[in-house]
Parts: sequence; structure tokens; C-alpha cells
Amino acid sequence: MYYVLLSGGSGRRLWPLSNEARPKQYLKLVNKEDNSMERCSMLQRVWAQLKEAGMAERTVITAGADQRELIKSQVREAQIAVEPGRRDTFGAVLLSCAWLWSRGGASKDDYAAVMPVDPYTEEAYFETVKQLEEVMKKSGAEVGLMGAVPSYPSVKYGYILPGERKDGWISVKGFAEKPDEEKAEELMKQGALWNCGVFCVRIGDILKRAVSYGVPEDYEGLCAAYDRLPRISFDYEVLEKARNLAAVEFRGYWKDLGTWDAMADQMSTDTVGNVALDESCENTQVINELKVPVAVLGARDLVVVASQDGILVTDKNQSARVKEVAAAFASRPMFEERRWGTLETLDETEYRGLSTLTRKIHIYDGMTSSYHFHKERDEIWTILSGTGELILEGTRIPLGPGKAVCIRKNQRHAVKALQDFEYIEIHVGTSVGNEDINRITFNWDEIELSHIL
Amino acid sequence: MYYVLLSGGSGRRLWPLSNEARPKQYLKLVNKEDNSMERCSMLQRVWAQLKEAGMAERTVITAGADQRELIKSQVREAQIAVEPGRRDTFGAVLLSCAWLWSRGGASKDDYAAVMPVDPYTEEAYFETVKQLEEVMKKSGAEVGLMGAVPSYPSVKYGYILPGERKDGWISVKGFAEKPDEEKAEELMKQGALWNCGVFCVRIGDILKRAVSYGVPEDYEGLCAAYDRLPRISFDYEVLEKARNLAAVEFRGYWKDLGTWDAMADQMSTDTVGNVALDESCENTQVINELKVPVAVLGARDLVVVASQDGILVTDKNQSARVKEVAAAFASRPMFEERRWGTLETLDETEYRGLSTLTRKIHIYDGMTSSYHFHKERDEIWTILSGTGELILEGTRIPLGPGKAVCIRKNQRHAVKALQDFEYIEIHVGTSVGNEDINRITFNWDEIELSHIL
Repeated sequence: MYYVLLSGGSGRRLWPLSNEARPKQYLKLVNKEDNSMERCSMLQRVWAQLKEAGMAERTVITAGADQRELIKSQVREAQIAVEPGRRDTFGAVLLSCAWLWSRGGASKDDYAAVMPVDPYTEEAYFETVKQLEEVMKKSGAEVGLMGAVPSYPSVKYGYILPGERKDGWISVKGFAEKPDEEKAEELMKQGALWNCGVFCVRIGDILKRAVSYGVPEDYEGLCAAYDRLPRISFDYEVLEKARNLAAVEFRGYWKDLGTWDAMADQMSTDTVGNVALDESCENTQVINELKVPVAVLGARDLVVVASQDGILVTDKNQSARVKEVAAAFASRPMFEERRWGTLETLDETEYRGLSTLTRKIHIYDGMTSSYHFHKERDEIWTILSGTGELILEGTRIPLGPGKAVCIRKNQRHAVKALQDFEYIEIHVGTSVGNEDINRITFNWDEIELSHIL
Repeated sequence: MYYVLLSGGSGRRLWPLSNEARPKQYLKLVNKEDNSMERCSMLQRVWAQLKEAGMAERTVITAGADQRELIKSQVREAQIAVEPGRRDTFGAVLLSCAWLWSRGGASKDDYAAVMPVDPYTEEAYFETVKQLEEVMKKSGAEVGLMGAVPSYPSVKYGYILPGERKDGWISVKGFAEKPDEEKAEELMKQGALWNCGVFCVRIGDILKRAVSYGVPEDYEGLCAAYDRLPRISFDYEVLEKARNLAAVEFRGYWKDLGTWDAMADQMSTDTVGNVALDESCENTQVINELKVPVAVLGARDLVVVASQDGILVTDKNQSARVKEVAAAFASRPMFEERRWGTLETLDETEYRGLSTLTRKIHIYDGMTSSYHFHKERDEIWTILSGTGELILEGTRIPLGPGKAVCIRKNQRHAVKALQDFEYIEIHVGTSVGNEDINRITFNWDEIELSHIL
């Protein structure tokens, strides 16, 4: 039995904290599973649980290339299958199986249980996932599912409709998407289960499907041919067509932290950051990532979130609609996390076709940038704290607080933090931000060898 | 009859928009009196009303030195009596009378009606203020007051208790501070009036009191001796001791916009700035001075205010308590308005005893700074937009987008905007911000004459 954590979605539902550069599964908002009250990300919590259950070594995380650095910075030992482009979930599952077979040591007869990266759940969930292998063998099903026994008639989840109960598993009759409350109560009485988004397949069965799209079934080959796959969901391509589905029941705590309502309930404290939550407030959570204070008075059932991308004030009952509202705010993320540090946008100004962008950059101790140049902009750097080293057109320049440097168009440069290191960089030109980065090498030592000497 | 607009208070009750550098009377949040739906400040609205009533020419605005530039930029023709230091309202009234007598053309037999700078009211208010002169003459009162006939039993205002009704005025029996609702209803039945904070005195009577503190009664002399005055309120020093008080009734619309609750009700729109106010909201106003969006869903009876100094989410019934909460957030204002432009703080970093401060400066077309130097910091400037001129140690340096300059400790410098002009300035040193500014001259032409040549 092998495991896949599927990491997808840009997380607009948790705006303004989540954005394309920081999907929700990487936000450090939930408490650790050990009840230490320390905060970690959903990915880190799930990973700790997988390790506890002895599953982590046979797990691959499947995610887009833009998430690789984030995953590595949060889970250093993670094995990652990188999606070469954006396809839907069928592509991601196929890629995961190809990785498990080509790199993960799995055979075609092995099973893979695919899980979302962001459930908020407990140990028993993972023990139940393990049972899917036996369910597959006993039932002979094409796909095995896991369903949580509902604790209340939720209108937010999809339901798995049970057929016959067998020895340790249930045959699946069908699905019901988010029902109204009356219908949900009826479904509960019939023994329907919340669909946790977990499914189990035989790796060889999935790889066979590669052939039907004319793509190789090994990881390398599949990556190269990835754009030949259709944009289709696993549900549509596999689940809906399967004649034989089996489910296992999970009796325990499970929650999808997809909305601020649900997320706020799982926070170990009512406030994060510089917040004055007045005692006149009730059932209200406030998350503040800004340095300036957030004061809340007389609020009831609210979630307030302030980040550099925007400010949200929402009644908990309305929080499912944040995604719609946030869709209108398509702009450059103001705060980005990278493997090597963080980027914070302080100002953007346009003037007669010339753009300027002012950012605060933090580079972690010992980290380096690539050696690169820009064709369309100059950069003016002013060092705030720490010490570092700039290589500019082959010359080493020591950097410390108060030092300012101008890096002109086409000048090759790279920076290394000798200690935790912060500077303000101002881009001036026709292309600013994360574009127009022409990389020569990622390796600091190579700069010295092949370019300076 | 002469008039005084008393401008005091740092406006913590309208945090995070108002701060020491931007008291509430200068916030451009209310609609103009002409119902144009254009926004103006409370000061501008009152000033327009004074002009309309033919009173502006005999009006002096009394305010602290730090407010002079703001007043001038909002009301160019205003005459200002500048308080040389912080005393309480008795000092301010004495100073106002001294100004009217020394500079404003008033005699000691003339009357001065003192008004707060920030009532939200209508034309008839000013016509009623004018009647105070006659009330003073008829009644022979030491102080004349104006009271608004209450429209509801407010618990937020002080009440003037009426004695006998005479020909056009009422003798004053006493005062009742913010009563509870029951008491307020009773007061209304007795004909009590809301205290609007307007009072009228004979200028000579007030000037006489200067002598008792051993200070001169002329404006220049009083300014020089201002610190000899006690910190005492006009209410305590004059009003409470007066044996003979007369009041005039004002029957019209009057409101003190001292809390967000009251202010929000007077806004001509529900939103200011980049705001998505969902249709699920009720009786909610949102003011956003930031560039990033504020989204509000499912809110009822809330006021949401976002500025560079902080974020407030308050139930309208709790908004009177903002001042208490904000008192805890004593920090450098993040946004400051000046006669010549604006200052916006983007970042503050401390590192091993060295401070850095990153600000975005906007200088209006044609405006200049003083010629000055700093002993404790370097400054690194990067121009974002517009064109300007720097004089650095007597040398003229043209400034345009992308240009960067370092101004080292003790280097004399001044800047002039040749067009609307923006730059990022980074202070690095042991003293950053609005301190350690050693001015040589305020006059641009003098720089060239006496320092360059």
C-alpha cells in the first residue's frame, strides 16, 4: 500500500491569507496534533500524522511546480511528484501512480490511497485509510472510498450512498452532492457517509489508462507528455464510470477546513498577531499578519483577517462566499513565501509607462539567490539588517545595514545571506516583479568558478 | 461680534483614521453642505458655512502649532491664532481673545463667540450663534451659551438646565452631564438643551483674567508668557464660577461627530476607497484608505475602518469605546499630511541599535522642503515619479524616476518638486523619522543666495 497527498487549488476561499503564492494548506494556522498549542500548517499537521501512522515513507506529495519550494521548506523529507502543468485531478492521480511505480518502489499490483492534503482529522483516520487495501482485495472493487460517519446533517459536504454492508466494507450505490438540511437528515438515517475525498486504486489499473491517451506510463515519460492529457477530473474519468465501488467507514473526527468558518473553529486561540479583541466580542476570531494593530469591538460570530493582500470581515455563516468576492481582487500577491525567504510588496507606482515596485526582501541565513540579470529594469537596493554578499558582474561586494547599491539593466548579480538578511529593493523599468529574471545558474559556487574567474 | 473656532484634541475617538498628525476635524469624510456629495473635512464644512453666514472674516481659528499647515492647506484664507504650547481650553480662549483684540480688529467691548471646529449642523446654527451678542446685552450675563433643542433623549450629550424664559433667552440653572435614558427623557420634558459647546464672552472680561496670572493681554506678549498659564479648562475657570449665565435655543439639526457611530451616519456613501461591501450587509459603513481591498460579508451595524495606522471593526453601539482601545496603540503615525505633501511609512526595522525607516514621500508640484541636515542618519532616496531638484551641499542635482541618491550625515540638502513628485526615502541611523532635522532656511531662494554662492 502506497499513499498520495494531492495538493491542489489556489485557495481563494481563505482569502486574503491564501493566494496563488500561498495556498491554504501551507498557512500556519492550525494547532499541532500533539495539542502543544503550537501552530503549524495543514500540510505539516497531516505529515506528522502520516509519520505517526508509519505511512510517510511510502507517501508522495503531488503538487504544481510553484509549490515545490513551499513543501520542501515545511516538510524537508517530503518526496514530491511535480505536475509539469495544470491538468485536472485525473492527470494528478495518473502522475502520482507513475511516480510511485517509477521512483517510489511500488509495483503495478500495489494499491495507492489518494488523500487530500488538508483534512483536519485524528489518528484513526489514517488507520482507516490503511484498511482500504484489504477492502480492495475483499471487494474486488475498481475504486475504494472512505466515508466519515456524519455527526450532524451537514449541508456543506457530499455524501456517499451505501448499498449492502459486507464484511468490513460497504458497497457504494451512488453519491449525493451538498443536500439541504432535510435531505441531509434523511441521508444520515440511511447510513450515508461524508465523502472525505479519499480513494484507493490499483496502481496498474490507473497506469493502463495512460496508454489510452497515448502517453508513457513512467514518470519521466509522462512528465514530458503531460500536456497531451485532457483536463478532466478523476471523478468524471474514473469514479463515475466504475461499476464496482467499495467504501470503508471512518468513525471519528473529520473536518474540511475550506472556509473561514471551519478554519476559525480549529484555531487554538481567538487571535493571531497584533490584535485587540475587546471583551464585548463573542465567538469571533481575528488573524492579523500586518504590523499595525487590528481592534475589534462588539463583534459577534465574525472572522476578521488582515494580510498584505487585503482585509476580510465576514459573518461566519457567509464565509463560504469569500471565494466569489475575492475573485474580483486579482492582483499580484503582496506577500510571498519562498524556500530562501520572503518577499513583501510595499509600494507599486506607475508613471508615464515606467513602473516601480518597492519590496522588502528577507533572505534566511546562508541562503542564496540565482545568478541572474534583468533586461527591462534597474534595481536599487538598500540594506536594512544582517550581512550578506553581492556578486555583481563578477565582483564581490559586502553588504550591511545602510549600504545602497544600484544594479543596472543586464548586470549579472546574485546575493547570499551571511546572516538573516533584509533589504529594500526598488525595481524601476518596464517589467518589474517576478518577471524578466534571466537565470545563469542557481549554484553559488558555479558563479565563482565559471563566471568570475 | 467676533468668532473663534477652537480646534483641539488629538481625536483618538476616530482611530485609526485620526491621530496626532491628523486630528478628526481634518479628515475628509463628511459631505459638503451644498449636498454635492463631494467629501470635505469638518473644518472645511464649517468654514463654508461661516462664509455663507458672513462670519468668516471675523473668525479666528485657534489651534496648536502642529495643526497650522493642515489648516492652511484646507482653508487657505484662514486666520490662525497659534497656541505656543499645550494648555487647556481656558488658555486657548484667552489666546483667541488676545488675538482678536491685537490683530483681529476687535475692541475690549466686543463679544467673541467660541465654537468647536467640528459640529455637524446646518445654516440656522450660525444664525443662532449671531444672536448671542444680543442675548449678552439683554441679559447682562457673564457667559452666553447656545443649546440645541433635543430631538431625542440622547445619553451621549451634556444638557443645559433651563431657569426662567425671558425675551429671546433663557437663564441657565445648571448642567447635567451625560444622563441615562430615563433621566434624559425627564430633562427633555423640563426643556433642557443639548450643550453644543458654544459660548460667548466679552473680550475685555476675558483679557482682564490675564492680569490675574501675571501675563500680558496682547497676543505677542501672551504667546511669550503662555507657559505661565495654568492647565485649566474654560468650564472650570470661568463657566462654573459665573453667577449669571444666559442661553439661546437653537432649533435645528446638530450632531457631534465624535464617534464612528455618528460619523458613519453622516457619510454620503456606505463605502470610501477600495471596498467590496456584500449585499448581505446591513447598516454598515466601510472606510478604506489602503490600496488593498477590504471585503465585508454578512455584517450588521458595523463600522470598518482601515488605514495605515491600523484596522478597526466595531459594532456601532460600542464605537464610543474606541478611544480606550486605541490608547494602547501609541506609535508613530503611519500616514501624515503636510502643507507640502504627504508622508507614508512603509517599514521600520531595528537591527543591533541601528534603526531604518522606509517612507514614501509625495511632494506637491512646486513645493519645497527646508534646507537642512541630519546628524544621526544617512538617507537613501529613490525617485518613483515626477521630476524635482535636489540641492546637496550647494550642488544642484536633477531628480527623475529611477534616480537614486545617498545623502550622508551632516550633508545639507533641500528638495523641490518641479512636478508632483514621489520618492522612497530610507533613513539609516540612530535617529530616524521626524527628529534630528536641523534647519538652515525654509526659503528656497535663500539657499542659493547664502549657502551655495
